[in-house]
Parts: sequence; C-alpha cells; structure tokens
Amino acid sequence: MYFASDNSGPVHPQVLAALTEANDGYAMAYGADALMEEVRQRIRDIFEAPDAAVYLVATGTAANSLALATLMQPWQTVFCSPVAHIHEDECNAPEFFTGGSKLTLVPGSDKMSPKALQAAIAKEENRGVHGPQRGPVSITQVTERGSVYSLAELRALSSVARERGLPVHLDGARFANAQAALNCSAAEMTWKSGVDAVSFGGTKNGLMGVEAVIFFDPGKAWEFELRRKRGAHLFSKHRYLSAQMAAYLRDDLWLTSARAANANCARLAAGLRAAGADFLHSPDANMIFAAFPRAAHRRLRDAGAMYHIWDGGVIEGDDPDEMIAARLVCDWSISGDQIDRFLALIRG
Amino acid sequence: MYFASDNSGPVHPQVLAALTEANDGYAMAYGADALMEEVRQRIRDIFEAPDAAVYLVATGTAANSLALATLMQPWQTVFCSPVAHIHEDECNAPEFFTGGSKLTLVPGSDKMSPKALQAAIAKEENRGVHGPQRGPVSITQVTERGSVYSLAELRALSSVARERGLPVHLDGARFANAQAALNCSAAEMTWKSGVDAVSFGGTKNGLMGVEAVIFFDPGKAWEFELRRKRGAHLFSKHRYLSAQMAAYLRDDLWLTSARAANANCARLAAGLRAAGADFLHSPDANMIFAAFPRAAHRRLRDAGAMYHIWDGGVIEGDDPDEMIAARLVCDWSISGDQIDRFLALIRG
Amino acid sequence: MYFASDNSGPVHPQVLAALTEANDGYAMAYGADALMEEVRQRIRDIFEAPDAAVYLVATGTAANSLALATLMQPWQTVFCSPVAHIHEDECNAPEFFTGGSKLTLVPGSDKMSPKALQAAIAKEENRGVHGPQRGPVSITQVTERGSVYSLAELRALSSVARERGLPVHLDGARFANAQAALNCSAAEMTWKSGVDAVSFGGTKNGLMGVEAVIFFDPGKAWEFELRRKRGAHLFSKHRYLSAQMAAYLRDDLWLTSARAANANCARLAAGLRAAGADFLHSPDANMIFAAFPRAAHRRLRDAGAMYHIWDGGVIEGDDPDEMIAARLVCDWSISGDQIDRFLALIRG
Amino acid sequence: MYFASDNSGPVHPQVLAALTEANDGYAMAYGADALMEEVRQRIRDIFEAPDAAVYLVATGTAANSLALATLMQPWQTVFCSPVAHIHEDECNAPEFFTGGSKLTLVPGSDKMSPKALQAAIAKEENRGVHGPQRGPVSITQVTERGSVYSLAELRALSSVARERGLPVHLDGARFANAQAALNCSAAEMTWKSGVDAVSFGGTKNGLMGVEAVIFFDPGKAWEFELRRKRGAHLFSKHRYLSAQMAAYLRDDLWLTSARAANANCARLAAGLRAAGADFLHSPDANMIFAAFPRAAHRRLRDAGAMYHIWDGGVIEGDDPDEMIAARLVCDWSISGDQIDRFLALIRG
Repeated sequence: MYFASDNSGPVHPQVLAALTEANDGYAMAYGADALMEEVRQRIRDIFEAPDAAVYLVATGTAANSLALATLMQPWQTVFCSPVAHIHEDECNAPEFFTGGSKLTLVPGSDKMSPKALQAAIAKEENRGVHGPQRGPVSITQVTERGSVYSLAELRALSSVARERGLPVHLDGARFANAQAALNCSAAEMTWKSGVDAVSFGGTKNGLMGVEAVIFFDPGKAWEFELRRKRGAHLFSKHRYLSAQMAAYLRDDLWLTSARAANANCARLAAGLRAAGADFLHSPDANMIFAAFPRAAHRRLRDAGAMYHIWDGGVIEGDDPDEMIAARLVCDWSISGDQIDRFLALIRG
Repeated sequence: MYFASDNSGPVHPQVLAALTEANDGYAMAYGADALMEEVRQRIRDIFEAPDAAVYLVATGTAANSLALATLMQPWQTVFCSPVAHIHEDECNAPEFFTGGSKLTLVPGSDKMSPKALQAAIAKEENRGVHGPQRGPVSITQVTERGSVYSLAELRALSSVARERGLPVHLDGARFANAQAALNCSAAEMTWKSGVDAVSFGGTKNGLMGVEAVIFFDPGKAWEFELRRKRGAHLFSKHRYLSAQMAAYLRDDLWLTSARAANANCARLAAGLRAAGADFLHSPDANMIFAAFPRAAHRRLRDAGAMYHIWDGGVIEGDDPDEMIAARLVCDWSISGDQIDRFLALIRG
Repeated sequence: MYFASDNSGPVHPQVLAALTEANDGYAMAYGADALMEEVRQRIRDIFEAPDAAVYLVATGTAANSLALATLMQPWQTVFCSPVAHIHEDECNAPEFFTGGSKLTLVPGSDKMSPKALQAAIAKEENRGVHGPQRGPVSITQVTERGSVYSLAELRALSSVARERGLPVHLDGARFANAQAALNCSAAEMTWKSGVDAVSFGGTKNGLMGVEAVIFFDPGKAWEFELRRKRGAHLFSKHRYLSAQMAAYLRDDLWLTSARAANANCARLAAGLRAAGADFLHSPDANMIFAAFPRAAHRRLRDAGAMYHIWDGGVIEGDDPDEMIAARLVCDWSISGDQIDRFLALIRG
Repeated sequence: MYFASDNSGPVHPQVLAALTEANDGYAMAYGADALMEEVRQRIRDIFEAPDAAVYLVATGTAANSLALATLMQPWQTVFCSPVAHIHEDECNAPEFFTGGSKLTLVPGSDKMSPKALQAAIAKEENRGVHGPQRGPVSITQVTERGSVYSLAELRALSSVARERGLPVHLDGARFANAQAALNCSAAEMTWKSGVDAVSFGGTKNGLMGVEAVIFFDPGKAWEFELRRKRGAHLFSKHRYLSAQMAAYLRDDLWLTSARAANANCARLAAGLRAAGADFLHSPDANMIFAAFPRAAHRRLRDAGAMYHIWDGGVIEGDDPDEMIAARLVCDWSISGDQIDRFLALIRG
C-alpha cells in the first residue's frame, strides 16, 4: 500500500526492455543517437507540431528551470501559483538557472485564477526600471494538489499572459495524467491553449528519469541546447534517455500508464468518499488530498500503508475522530488489490 | 572498429542486470534508497576513507562543476591545464555553477608541471582585492591527452596547492583507467596524494550515466547536497543511479573493465608503434594520440573505422605519406578482433 | 513645494564644502584614503562598536544587495515585508548579487509582525534539500510607508530570527530619520536590538550618493570587500565618498538634517490632520501617506506642488470630494514656508 | 612627485564648480535630470552618432562589465589581451555581470595582434555545444601598458571580429588620452573603426567617479538600463554624475586635460630617454613603463617620489647599476615642476 509518491514506483518493464535493446554496440553521443530522432518525430506527431524543438533531460527541475531560463531574462519575474513546484520544491533552481530572476506568487491557493493572475501582472506595470520586469506565466498541470485545469481554464490563463506579450510555460510533470483526465489531445492542452513551452514528464509515470522539453517556437532550440550543456544536463550516453522516452511514446504506453493510475485513483477517491472522507482539493488525476479520522490513520499505519500526512497534521493525539489530512498518490504500478485493502482499513 | 569515444560504447551487462534487479516495487526517492547506502559504504571502503561524503550525479560536467563550486568562492580562480575538460568542453558550466569564477590556465600543454603551477599561483599574489582570488587546483587523471600522472607527480602538484592553502580537485572521468595504469590504490591516487575532492567517473567505463563525487572532508556534505539539488541534479528515482554504481563497484567490475580497456589500448599502441606511427602524447591508459600516414587513414576510413582526426589534420590531400594525427579511444567493450583488424589496415 | 522624493533634494552645503576641501593633491585610491579612516572610527564610535567592519558604497541598492549577499548563501531565502524596497524596487538586484536566492514575503502589509515572521520561517522547516533554505531577515527602518519600528518591535523581530539562527539585516536608507524619531542611540537601534548588518543611508539625507554598510561581526569584512569589488562598487577615487560621509557624521549633521526633515513632516501631518485628511500609515518620520479630496489635489497641482499619487488614485474625475491618496516626503532641505503654502492650498 | 596612478589625482576645479552649480533645489532622480539630456546630446555630437544610447555609471569596472554583459550571453567568451584590466584587475566582475561567461586571453603581450586574435577565435570553431561560444572582442585603448593602437590597428582587430559576426567593445578608461595621442576624432576611434560599444572614462582624467557607456546601436538601450539598475549602478541623485560629465565635455575640458597629461608624460619620457632609461613599452599617452638604475630609484624614493615598481623589481639590493622597472603615470594635474624635479633626481 504505497501512496507516498509517484517518484517511488518502479520503471515500466517495456522501458527496461527498451534499454536492453538499445544496449547494442556503439552509438553517437550527446543526443545524436538514432533513437532521439525517433523521439523527436514522435513528439512532433503527438503534439501536431512539425517544427517543435524537442530535448530530453533527466529531472523535472532541469526541465522546468531550463525551459523558463530560455523564455526569460534575469531581470524578469515568473508568475506562478504560490504552491508551484518551481517555488516550493526546487531549492532555488529556477532562480539559479535564470541567472537571478524572481518568482511572483499569484495570490490564491493551488490553481491560479485568471483574475488573480491579471492583477499580479498589472501590479508590475509602470514600474519602469525599478520593479522586476514581467516574464513568463508558469502553469502546473496536473496541479500540485491533484487538480486539473480544464482547457477553458488553460486558455483563460494563457490569454491573460498573451495580452501582455508574456510567454506561457506548462509544468507537465504529470502531463500524461492530465491529458488522460481531460481526454483531449496534447496539442489542445498546449499550443492550442496558448502554451509556448512544455515540461513533458516521464519520470513519475514509469521512466527512470527522463523529461522532454518542448518549444513550439523552434527559434529557441539552439539557446536551449547551450543552456542544457552549460547546466551539465547534456548526457554523453544520451541513447539511454532516448530509449526510455521512445518506449514511453510507443503504442501510447504513456497514456495507458496514466489512465491506469488515474482509474485507480478514482477508485480510491470513490471509496474514501463513501467512507466519509473530506476532500481538500478536487482529485482530478492520480493524486488525492483527503482528510479522514485519526483512528483510520492508525489502522493504516499499523498495516504498513505509506503516504504523507499533510499540512502539519499529527497522527498522535487523543481524539480518534479528529480528521487528519493526507496526500495519496497512485503511480502507474499501483494495484487494485492495494487500493481495496487500503479502503477496507479506512472503513475499519 | 569504434575508437571515437568511450562515451559511445554500451553499458556493461552486469549493470543492466542490476537495473532490472533494482526495479522491484517502491523505493525511497531522492537518494534515500538502500542501494545508495551500499554505494556509500563501498566507496568509503575502496578509498579507505570512512568519513567521506559520497554523492551521485549523472554527468561528468555536473560532477566537476558541483565539486569545484563546493570548494571555492565566485571571486576565485581555478588553476588547471590549458586543455582541461572543464575549460574546453563544458560550455562555461564551471563558471556557471561557481557563480561566475574564473579558470586560470597553467602555461604548458596537457600535463601541468609543478613549476608552472607554482608560477601561475604566484602571479596572483599581492593583488589585494583587484585580482581574482586563488582557488582550487584541478587535475585531470587520466589527462585529456591520454597520459597518467604518477603518484609522485600528483603529490608534487598537490604540494604546490597545499603550500598556499588551496584545495585540490581530481577530475577522474577516467579514474578507473588511471588507477589500473598506476596499479595503485584509490587512496594513494587521491587523499594520500593530497586530493580533497574527486569526480569518480563511471559513464565512460560501462555505466549509462553515473559519476560519484567524493569529498574526504565530510563537512562539505550538506553544501554539496544543496548545490546538487539547486543544480537540478538530484534524481527522484535515485535508486537507478545507485544500482548502476553498486554494480560497478561489486567484484571490482570497475577495475576489470578499465584493465581490459587499457590492455587493448596497449596492444593497439604497440601495433601502431611497430607500424611506425608517431605518438603525440604518452599513451598511458585507454587513449592514444598518434600520427600515421594519410594512406593508412584512407584504408581505415574506407573500412569503416571510427576515430577523431586531431588538431585540424585533413585526410583529403595529395601526399599519401603525410602524417596525420588521430585520437583513438578504447572503451571497456572493444574487442581484440577489432584492434587486430585496425592494425592490419594500418600496416596496409 | 517638492514632496515627491528625498532623492530629489540638493546636497547639504557642508558636504559640498567637504568635497572641495578633500580635493587637494593626491590621495591613496580604493579606500586607503585618510578620510576613510576618520569615517570608520566615527561610525564605530557612533555605533559603540569598536570592531565593526565599515564600508562605503554609492547606492542604497548596492548597500542592501551586497550586505545580504554577505549574510547568506544562494540557496537561501530572505524574509522581508511584501513592500520591501529589496523586493519591489531593485529590479532583482538582491537576487543577482546573492547568486540567485529568493525573497520570502512575510504576509501582512508594511510592517512585519513577529508572529507572521515566525510563521513564514516555520513554513520552511523540515523541507530538507527541497525548499529554499532559511536565510536573513531584512527589516526596513524607516519602513517603505513612513512608519518606524519601536525598539521593542525591532527586538521582537530579531528574536524570532535569532531563535532560528538567522542573521538580521537593517535597510536603513532613512536610518537617521528613524533614529531621530525614536530618540535612541544608533547602538540601541541596531546591535543592541539584534541587528547584524546595517545599510546606513546618507543619500536621502543630504549626500550626493553615499551609503555605509556596517557589519558588527568583523569576520565579514574581507568577503564584503571582495563582493564590493566584484560588484564594481569599489571607487578608485574613494576619498570623495569618504569626504561626504565624514562631513555627514561631523557635528551630528546627519541627525540635525533628519530632525529638520522629521519636524517639517510632523508639521505637515498636523496640518493635514487638521484639514481632515485620512492617514494610510502612521507618519512617524519624514514620509506621509495621506488621502485628501480631489479638489485639494487640483489646487495643489495647479500651484505646482510635486508629490506621488498613490495606489492608482486618479486626479481626473468628477467628484471633487472623493478622497485620493498621496505620498509626501520631506527631505532635509524642505522649508517651513513650502509646508505652510501647501497646507493653505489644502485648506482651500 | 606623484606618478603612482591617475586614480589618485584631484578633481578638476571646473568639475567641482559644476557640482556646486547643479546643487540647486530639486531635480528629477534616476537619470531624468536635465543635465543628463545635455550630456547625451553632447556625446552624440562628439561621436557623430545621433542615435547612440548614452549612460553614466560611477566606476570603470561597472562600465566594462555592464557593457560586455549587454553584448553577449553567459555561454560565450570575451577575447581580450592577457593583461586586460577586465581579466587582471576586476576580481571576476565581468564573469559576474555576464552571468558566468569566460575570458579567452589572446596569446601575446599587451597589444593584441590581428593574427593572434584570429587564431584565438578560430580555435573555438566547430566546437558545437561543447566549447564556449564566441563572444565580443574587447580592446583596451590606451592599453594597460601605456601604448595606443593606431586607427589602422583598431580597424584590423575589429575586422577580424566582424568577419565572425562578433561585437567589439572598447575599454576607454583613458579614452581622452588615446584620442589626444592619435589626434583623431572620437568617431574615427570608435564606430568608424568598427567599435560597437565604448567605456568612455572620466575618472582618471579629472572627474570624481563617472564613466559613460555608449552603444552605437540604440537597440541596446533598454537592456542596458535594466542591467545597470539590477547591478545597483543607477544613481538616485543622478544629477551629480551628469554635472561632472557635462563639465568634462564643455569647452573640450576632457581633451585639454588629456593633452596636458600626455604632454607632461612626453616630457618625462624624453628626459628618461636622455638619462639612459630603457622602455618596456611604447609610452604613447600618459603612462610610462621604464627601467632605470637602482641608485636612481633610491634617490627618487628618498625624495618622496611615488610610483609603482613593476614586475617584481626590488629596490633593495646590492648593485646600484641594476636596472629596475617602474610604472609612471601622469594625471591631468601633474605639474612641469614635478617632472623637472623627478628628472633631476634621475640624472643624479
């Protein structure tokens, strides 16, 4: 019963098989391998973007930081959610890779609202040389709290950005889960909704450590290559990144895996709801923030269930009925059995 | 007949097997996996350094840049060979990760001499606040031109550094090949010779992409962890780095592989010498810089041999006897057959 | 009737005289001038800090950015007011000079409360390597909205910082006005209240462009000197900075000038209050944020009065009674006559 | 007898008078003062560049670092003399302001030769993403050793840069002395010779601390303004920079002062030559590198003459006839009497 993180699950067997298959003889280093060409074409097809610049890096922080750096200048500020991963969980990596820029937190909670975004951007108007200059809007999809922006919501946010001439970045660490949730195309969730650059995650969805960065403006390509190399994120034996991503994209493995995770998460959410849990956020994809009684937590903990207690909730305490919040994540490999067992324990 | 780079060879089967074995169920993310504990202990044993701080990253540039950044301040300068990888081949990554430091090229060619190093350091004396401040000495072992510093040479360089209170970094992208060549212990080639921090390479010697960074002063550990995270080089699914490195260290695979590469390289060098080739540098490990006639190059090229023509040598030309320089690298997987075939073609 | 900024007023005649006096023959460059020795000793006396490190720079942004950089690491975050100058008005200079750090805005408005500061700091606890690490607390005294922290308030804030081992920086662009308002000693307002480093402003109070940076821990001295030089803020003809600061400190010119500004501001505030103005913030020193009717604004504007309309207030409009906010700053040179004339126009 | 540095001399009386004159009432802050408009127009006239972007900063290091940063990217390298001020004397400020770029030292000594420059640039060709990318060429005029590039030499260097599409920066800390030496126009020494951006020094030639930065491409203006502010080099009371530069440019004070310095230097050089001194470099402007006997050094030192012993020469020693090198700088204020007295002491 492992619901602590989708960073803890195993790699999909098809990905391991692809690594083994790729491990034959010599291959060109530094991204000139043949598999990368397959990846590039496949992503362009999936995104209906025949000119897109496509690159691989090994961590989500690298994808986000390098993508943002390529979209902005050091004297600008990124507009993002106050709980964005780039703000809370990357130890100032975006500030480092952008050369000392700032992040402006759009007031609100998890999801940004177009109105709050507009106000945050407007606040930096007419500041001349004194204030930070306005830079990209970064949207996290799936959000940090497990919600998914609808296409209409994405378009509303990117419209606000585009009115001011600001580029839009999508942090898609859980891109596949979001697309599966929306049942839309990759193009609809990105450039057709006003997105300029995407961190297209694979690690949380069955890869060892590969994320693609996609720019719909191919003019960004060379700068990104230089930034990636200078950031020490260009792999010499690049074929092993390519092989993972190629396997991920073949036969829609990425979507199949995400759909499985989402479906299991929905099953878990339904069971929690039936058991009387409260939901802190809308569980739209593969992540749930729910509160249930301390007594249930104790049963789960004693049975070895793994998940994060949220927002300072403490399991130790007197009142067995007190509601305590938890974060539950379903990765691609979670089984229905584990969920059933978890729900049985919740029900007591 | 692939002699172009040890970045192009395959991964050792034992490493692939270890990845498969590690791919079971859930594991703690971000370096808290059990395999990392094995790696840490094994490296401490190998280096006879029970307190050493040990970390994994995925590229050699990350290892070098993060290690140097941890050893210095942005207003300092690194003393290194004019052909050091950190100077010539990392697109300013060391300058980026150190926050804008400088590299001072010690006059000479591939290997630094203690005398030239001493003079370069002395030149920055008495500069007060105006000049760059003196920072680490970075030594590349195996050098960029395939030579190996003897232990006496290493000690002479580090003595120069230590007299001035400067730390010593060892760029060991080909650490195993150097150690195999010297037939010494890891401790002798590092801290017993005055080295403070090591980039301990694995990628060029049979891994997919893993390098260890080792500090003999454990006081550097936390800063390095923060720098690694901020540099976007902390892997969430870290177990797959650990698994590679663990397999590399088990049963001396790292040394066995390096010895194979060195032995094949020696065989190649002997054949070249017998065929009348000139050597630009002493071929001490798994890399040869040699010149042989244009006619031989043509035969090799026509037969599909892969290697880099060096220093602007041009194969096209009239004189079949003109000597043209080449870089030939033997990776762990090169076979004796390939070498024999190559030598037969050289001989014509 | 110039109330737009204390950056717009003239230099005090005694300062100009001191520049003329200093302009005699040759002097040691780069801070080794004799006048700097006078400045250093005088500041140590004033602050009752015989070991303090004392440096001069020419802009407030340099003073703040270099002081903060010396107190922190790039992976840390500064805790400050959401309207702090370092956040709103320095075009990411603190982020630049600190090498890519972050600023955490303590929720609230102008003045930070100890409770909100404590909560902001606590939020970054137990984040391991993922979140920004906790760095200095920066307090602005006089605040950006013209208020002055009492000594008890300063001590309460610094206690919160010190409990966590965090250093405290005081942005004293209007240090003299604050000290005059509190009628305390410089030591009381700084190290006796838990402050580690001070930006001691002179520019807004009668100098051309000189600010002192003071560290009570002399161990910061050499790093600051290197940071200042690397930041291009070390003046070759440094004696002209020294001469200004020396004149400022002689015969308490700094306090006399600040007291004059504060007294004129108090007179202006009293007149505004009598005329029915609303106050947005407590006008404790030489800056007022007040709202008065549009009709009064029009009379003032037509008579040539200069000041900033605040927070988007628009003078153009129909209702002559609508209250519109303004920022009014009294510099050291403002005359009682100007204030009387201004108040007469307010009254209509 | 002060020949140690042109950073140690006084400010010209006309400059002090201009500061006094500017010190009247209120003026717009941050560069919007009326005097800056005069400066801008005057520089455009002098340089015959009606569209040039013109800014003021207070130190030469700021002028150079900000100008270079505006001309390049962090992954590029600056080509410069191995003794360039930006390399030897700015404590890594260019690396800092450019965000971590590199400086490539063109082999040779003080003056760069077009051939060596071409070779240094060619060396970075075909490096793909691995090497530093090629960035600006920075030329120091007057050189660090007191020589002046002829217009033909400047054009030859800039041609090499322009063939590769690289911008050209002129470090003109002693611009006036160079122009006086060449007896040419400012336009001839800059854009007509292929220069894109100029650090136009004033500090060493009679100002307190003001340098202009000039871009002939006005498209660089806004970025430079942001970089200047972010670098903490935008003065609030900017009128006092403007007043100095305005006085410097009025009635050719800048050229008159430089001609005086050069003429006195020529007189000094002639006397040294007559006395049998050796010259290490051609003394083309206001700086001499000459060697004369230890006995003469002792007489000068005992009489209180101030200058730098060069290249490790030691006055203490046995042989009174040994030649010892010195750097002698004539600033605008040096008197003929001092020179005569110096020469009398040399002659013994």
